[in-house]
Amino acid sequence: MVHSAYRAIGILDSGVGGLTVFQELTRQLPHEQIVYFGDTARMPYGPRPDEEVRRFALQIIDFLQNQEIKLVVVACNTATAAGLSSYREQSALPVLGVIEPGVRAALAQTGNGRVGIIGTAGTVRSSAYEKALQGARPGLHVIARPCPLFVLLVENDLVDTPEAEKVAVEYLAPFNRASIDTLILGCTHYPLMAGLIQKTVGPGVKLINSAREIAGEVKEILTEQQLHHPLRLAEPGYRFFVSGNPGSFEEIASKMLHRRIKAYQVTL
Amino acid sequence: MVHSAYRAIGILDSGVGGLTVFQELTRQLPHEQIVYFGDTARMPYGPRPDEEVRRFALQIIDFLQNQEIKLVVVACNTATAAGLSSYREQSALPVLGVIEPGVRAALAQTGNGRVGIIGTAGTVRSSAYEKALQGARPGLHVIARPCPLFVLLVENDLVDTPEAEKVAVEYLAPFNRASIDTLILGCTHYPLMAGLIQKTVGPGVKLINSAREIAGEVKEILTEQQLHHPLRLAEPGYRFFVSGNPGSFEEIASKMLHRRIKAYQVTL
Repeated sequence: MVHSAYRAIGILDSGVGGLTVFQELTRQLPHEQIVYFGDTARMPYGPRPDEEVRRFALQIIDFLQNQEIKLVVVACNTATAAGLSSYREQSALPVLGVIEPGVRAALAQTGNGRVGIIGTAGTVRSSAYEKALQGARPGLHVIARPCPLFVLLVENDLVDTPEAEKVAVEYLAPFNRASIDTLILGCTHYPLMAGLIQKTVGPGVKLINSAREIAGEVKEILTEQQLHHPLRLAEPGYRFFVSGNPGSFEEIASKMLHRRIKAYQVTL
Repeated sequence: MVHSAYRAIGILDSGVGGLTVFQELTRQLPHEQIVYFGDTARMPYGPRPDEEVRRFALQIIDFLQNQEIKLVVVACNTATAAGLSSYREQSALPVLGVIEPGVRAALAQTGNGRVGIIGTAGTVRSSAYEKALQGARPGLHVIARPCPLFVLLVENDLVDTPEAEKVAVEYLAPFNRASIDTLILGCTHYPLMAGLIQKTVGPGVKLINSAREIAGEVKEILTEQQLHHPLRLAEPGYRFFVSGNPGSFEEIASKMLHRRIKAYQVTL
């Protein structure tokens, strides 16, 4: 057993979206310690140029690597699309992104070969999902739509409002016309509004939750590399850092995770 | 073996002074992980009212307790003098201060029963050392002098300057007249200028380095409570946080510890 197995899993996200990944990790890997960084001062990442998102992500990976971790989860589709290969080049640790696991799950799921993708402007612009899906299965029909307001609805706790319903209908109507049977939630914020999305696209469309898929992949990597925490910790430690004011993050995170979350503001 | 043994040792200080404790811990306990917090934005603590120092220390202990630690070292005499018992009341972890170990070492050392103490204004004003020394040995002759500029000389890398020599002579002359044989360095910054202090008080006076003494006490507590890290980590992780700009802290720390130190700024 290598000593690094005792270390934590590092998660980076632009804000609270990655908490869906955090939550899945705590479900699927309940004995692992986790260090979470939410770049709340600079979110949303969606509208930013790739180069800037890459620079922010590398700063956060540098921070996480100084916090005793064994693996980095880029729990943000925009940051994954902007430069997963750069992060892998610059880190000695395994770096996992959210796109590949979602793609694999969608390919396994679709029956009629018609797959939808929703994501931030950056993720959709990158065509990362289309390339991966069509690279794996050339004849696949793929339609992608950016839904930039979704992140803001989630970050500002506005999902259960009439305006959110209107926004959802506006963004998702094209998928109804396209007869997709699978919709990739290509942003880790979206599982937090999965109810509204499902209601809008109808019960016939299967939603792919990239947070759940990546947690499965983390588990596989820990097994392959013998990095599962050797102790079955009853209360593994969770550390939360943000770049902005911790108050609103703590509020959303505590509500979502049903436990009191304490976060600290770090300047990168 | 309890799981918490795998956790780190937490150190709090007003700035870089606690690095002398850090250094002694890495020497005496080379397999322990350490989390260090230097309150550089609010140093020096010496001139501040006790109540304020206590409030700052409690904030830092709260932060450290959220960083997966098993024990708190208050590596600052001013903070120890201001409220060690409050910190112990408010923490579920063992909390160690720098005064008791220094007192024990001085009592073991003195031959003529004449002991000097130098510290910050806060430490000297508290009479914490005198009370502990005379409580343990009532006839002891104790003289204490505040040396407020010493911390600033160390924090600003000005120890090897002619003005530092003048300041040392000014502060330390009373000890020569008092014929002490033991001088407690009642501030964790002072070991960083031990050469100048020794030269000024002369070779007949034994200096008590509270950093070294507290490291010995940490070792004892870890043994008693079975909290030594169960793995003989070849490269235990060290995490550094500061409240001010990390640049100057990193510079002094890297020079002192002969390794590249990366620190992150946290807002408490």
